[in-house]
Amino acid sequence: MNETLRHTLKKPSQQLGEAIKHKINFKTKPLGALGVLEELALQICLIQQTDSPILKNPHILVIAADHGIAREGVSAYPQDVTWQMIRNFLSGGAAINVFAAQNNIAIKIVDAGVNYPFESTTPNLIQLKIAKGTASFLNQNAMTAIQCQQALKNGGLLVEQCHLDGCNVIGFGEMGIGNTSSAALIMSLITRIPIAECVGKGAGLDDEGLKQKINVLTQAYNFHCERTDAMDILSSVGGFEIATITGAMLRAAELNMLILVDGFISTAAFIIAHALQKNIIDYAVFCHQSNEQAHKKMLQYLNVAPILNLNMRLGEGTGCAIAYPMLQSAVNFINQMASFETANVSNKH
Amino acid sequence: MNETLRHTLKKPSQQLGEAIKHKINFKTKPLGALGVLEELALQICLIQQTDSPILKNPHILVIAADHGIAREGVSAYPQDVTWQMIRNFLSGGAAINVFAAQNNIAIKIVDAGVNYPFESTTPNLIQLKIAKGTASFLNQNAMTAIQCQQALKNGGLLVEQCHLDGCNVIGFGEMGIGNTSSAALIMSLITRIPIAECVGKGAGLDDEGLKQKINVLTQAYNFHCERTDAMDILSSVGGFEIATITGAMLRAAELNMLILVDGFISTAAFIIAHALQKNIIDYAVFCHQSNEQAHKKMLQYLNVAPILNLNMRLGEGTGCAIAYPMLQSAVNFINQMASFETANVSNKH
Repeated sequence: MNETLRHTLKKPSQQLGEAIKHKINFKTKPLGALGVLEELALQICLIQQTDSPILKNPHILVIAADHGIAREGVSAYPQDVTWQMIRNFLSGGAAINVFAAQNNIAIKIVDAGVNYPFESTTPNLIQLKIAKGTASFLNQNAMTAIQCQQALKNGGLLVEQCHLDGCNVIGFGEMGIGNTSSAALIMSLITRIPIAECVGKGAGLDDEGLKQKINVLTQAYNFHCERTDAMDILSSVGGFEIATITGAMLRAAELNMLILVDGFISTAAFIIAHALQKNIIDYAVFCHQSNEQAHKKMLQYLNVAPILNLNMRLGEGTGCAIAYPMLQSAVNFINQMASFETANVSNKH
Repeated sequence: MNETLRHTLKKPSQQLGEAIKHKINFKTKPLGALGVLEELALQICLIQQTDSPILKNPHILVIAADHGIAREGVSAYPQDVTWQMIRNFLSGGAAINVFAAQNNIAIKIVDAGVNYPFESTTPNLIQLKIAKGTASFLNQNAMTAIQCQQALKNGGLLVEQCHLDGCNVIGFGEMGIGNTSSAALIMSLITRIPIAECVGKGAGLDDEGLKQKINVLTQAYNFHCERTDAMDILSSVGGFEIATITGAMLRAAELNMLILVDGFISTAAFIIAHALQKNIIDYAVFCHQSNEQAHKKMLQYLNVAPILNLNMRLGEGTGCAIAYPMLQSAVNFINQMASFETANVSNKH
């Protein structure tokens, strides 16, 4: 069993909760007037066990892999786009590059299983390729149990390195043609929401393409439908980037880091982590609701509210990068605003 | 009549529209995958008449005034909070100070009619006091037509100064105990939505207080209900900060600046501006939906969608400051992302 699963993940201690709420409530603003920012401030304070939190050296890991299921005609784009986009990430031209640079977030690009032979010397590419893509889970397992364990472990190691570099807030993005199909299967098998409701248009299928995707994934669901164990589900219908992210999230929570969850695929990785360690929910913020239709239901299943709803559906961790300034705002107001007392402002009648 | 109303405000030319959309659509992302950011990028490009927009020297003007209606028991906080909060803004301890500093937005604090004798030498306070608060509009006009014209003109002058300083994006915040009451009356008289649906808990009334506020404002509505002219409505039930903001917004649009609309009170100022110049809508972004219940209906009346919905209800321009990074993201992606062609990424099948 994976290192990160030997122990039960603890909830953050709630002992400081009242003191933190008091500090929030006596800032110069009506009670509760900062809404979601107040909830985020409380959560970050509890994770860090302080009433003066700080976000240090934020990172987004963009983890890529290919999917055997892509051969079954479930995607609007050819599989080559996965490696081509890695090149784009490495040369700074993708959306995640732009948004991360804007908000001073470091990014790392990881090959967890892309079907392309990158040169071993490719600058800035972290090479943790398990295989050149998964097998098609239409009527077999996407990966072996050993491959799945390796991917989980790789995720943990990636996070440990960031933590050693002083990072305490980490987001996860992904790239992988076909990975909304993998995420849909994970969602349906974990939540038991019917597969057709877990499938969306991904990067841009038309109505005909969506019908085809639902047909293919219904077949796949029927083949795997008796699986109930989260680890078994992950290895049978997951992807190498998804398993790597799951392992990364579990390790981040163990290290008391704030986890930024992105869109549909990243949340699929999270629901596996959550099935393994329920308390991981206290370490996670859900950065945005994807326009991929099933993401809303996934968030409802977890009983969480996203920070943003901007009709985005790009992945790459872009939702994390766009939401990050709001997390910084949550931290800033609790540290920097005056209280009624220090500012000599009258409180309520 | 006010200078800004002599001419009809023009819509931005749509001539560049197709070229801008083409540039957005060929960025390395699925078509439409950046959702609201794509709409914002298009809007900003059209205002600036370029496909390479830039946000320059952003400002938020925080404009304060007092309200005679506050004497009728419509607010949870005493009137002194208005001037006390101005002191808090000037010493940097309020929420808007924190968020504006975080996002490199300049703020200016303006006394448009606060019931307090600030020293004429108060550093950094822009003194444009029309009077020490409005009259109670319960059964008289809040201000004279001349006062209203002066406030509108002041708003225009404030914006012109920012524009001279190189600013092309400007938000408006407010402070004024009692000003949700003024905003509710404006809303009901302009939109003819029943007054009870336009009233909310403001800074923090309890259920009993809300009932009292609805009673008072229903009386006021009945007194003013025959008014239909927007300028007449503004002077009879408005506030000095609201009229100043209305004038400021009108001038900002004339100067082709991007207008950041904040919450309930700022949107009330906007609906007056909109009643006077319909095309102002093309220059405005609606930064957030306030938790003040009637704001949602106000936005529906304007047929606009807010960028954020964070259950905030603080005013001061805080919604503008929090949303600003997303506007910067919209500008950055269109300027900085690679296209399919330049990045050698395959487009759709």
